[in-house]
Amino acid sequence: MIERIAILGTGLLGTSVGLALREARFRGQIAGWNRSPEQAQVALNAGALDEIAADPLQVARESQVVLLAVPIYATLDWMEKLSGVLGSDHLITDVGSTKRQISEAGGRLFNRPDRAAFLPGHPMAGKERGGAALADAALFRGAVWLFTDDPAALRSPHSSELVKGWREWVEAMGSKIIDLDPMRHDELVAWVSHLPQFVATALSALLQDKVGDAPELKDVGGRGLREMTRLGASPYSMWRDIAYTNTEAVQAALHALEQSLAHLRENLRTPELRDAFEQANRFRRE
Amino acid sequence: MIERIAILGTGLLGTSVGLALREARFRGQIAGWNRSPEQAQVALNAGALDEIAADPLQVARESQVVLLAVPIYATLDWMEKLSGVLGSDHLITDVGSTKRQISEAGGRLFNRPDRAAFLPGHPMAGKERGGAALADAALFRGAVWLFTDDPAALRSPHSSELVKGWREWVEAMGSKIIDLDPMRHDELVAWVSHLPQFVATALSALLQDKVGDAPELKDVGGRGLREMTRLGASPYSMWRDIAYTNTEAVQAALHALEQSLAHLRENLRTPELRDAFEQANRFRRE
Repeated sequence: MIERIAILGTGLLGTSVGLALREARFRGQIAGWNRSPEQAQVALNAGALDEIAADPLQVARESQVVLLAVPIYATLDWMEKLSGVLGSDHLITDVGSTKRQISEAGGRLFNRPDRAAFLPGHPMAGKERGGAALADAALFRGAVWLFTDDPAALRSPHSSELVKGWREWVEAMGSKIIDLDPMRHDELVAWVSHLPQFVATALSALLQDKVGDAPELKDVGGRGLREMTRLGASPYSMWRDIAYTNTEAVQAALHALEQSLAHLRENLRTPELRDAFEQANRFRRE
Repeated sequence: MIERIAILGTGLLGTSVGLALREARFRGQIAGWNRSPEQAQVALNAGALDEIAADPLQVARESQVVLLAVPIYATLDWMEKLSGVLGSDHLITDVGSTKRQISEAGGRLFNRPDRAAFLPGHPMAGKERGGAALADAALFRGAVWLFTDDPAALRSPHSSELVKGWREWVEAMGSKIIDLDPMRHDELVAWVSHLPQFVATALSALLQDKVGDAPELKDVGGRGLREMTRLGASPYSMWRDIAYTNTEAVQAALHALEQSLAHLRENLRTPELRDAFEQANRFRRE
């Protein structure tokens, strides 16, 4: 039923979706647009797109599904622009890493009679570096893809069919769908995604100060250090929007970790250290 | 020149050394001993040993090189025991993760006329779980192997030959040797090895509190979370000795990271966040 998909933003995620759809035997058209034409060309050359769209609003109108694969504030901007252009025969979905503001905008701008449907989505997949050149058809295989829609908000049967269709393609790309309330989503990802990122950033930045001038000493840390700092390569451009749109939840998670570290520091020679290791062991065992 | 090596402690590291020596075509005898006979049997079955020694002191006497591959306090205990038993035709070396106390004991008990030589060593390789069953001939390939000896302390030419021989086998196992002062060693590994471990432990223990009762939500974090918590599986039994013997340096590193996290937390919406990301990016780029 989905015959044409428009991907606005052909970076790592947008291009990977195009590749994954092809691998899952999606037979419709995939059109892509990117602010930087070079990235769109890379996506086209990789086989993720059938065509590069000259006009993003026009290609959105001509598609059933519009995937917004851009940072969060750019997603909110596109939602405003598209709300006046698309109607009840369209579904818009996104891949933004925080969902409260996007879900609110979705309820305000879409999901009512005569408006397009909006399905807030968040694939828990990515790499520490972006760009179409790193795209991977297998990126979503085994990953969780979160949705934070309110199905009751979808008034038109046509929208429901498009939502059902997109969810099936997400599963065909190898992802496991979990539905969450948007507030619960933002709190959860603050712990399991944003906190690990900010810890890796803080650790990497600190170690750059300490041993950054002695490259041979970086090798000393081995695999553990490499893993604990891999996300240190993540770009500010993406994480700025996350920090802005999930500030309170990230602050709470960071503060809790500061307290956990202080507790370890004060108990390096007491049995409390054993308790912390055993609690950590449980997290990895289950 | 080294015709017989005794490995005291056939856990992950000791057994991996046996396997790696064999792969590097060491043609002498390798005898092993372990407090738990089952672990020694696993090492023998894996091909890491030629024989299981019944008496660790006797097998040490009958070997040129004795490798202590046990936790730090057990290493210090063995050093005391061996100092009365071995003479100038023996080299003892170890794999302990902190080196200040071990190097001090080495200077006190060995490295003088008529005494055995002691070469403090620390391969920067391991796994988050121990045991002979996880041993791997490739564990040391590409890893750094630190030594914190004072070559001037080696008075006997025979000792020098044994030290030279062991260093050559370490390189033959695929490791890159770096020589460091013991104090500098302990400070460096506090940053690049112990800090990452304690962060992973604190993060894993915290997340066990937050989402441990919802296994399906752990999958949400994906690869980033898995990597940032892999070391959370590390056993207290090994890290207790490290916490005890490198307390001040680990405290300083933990405290610095707490401050870095607090700085991020207070600057999620200021340009300071960009600076932290750029500093972290530099660590991963160089």
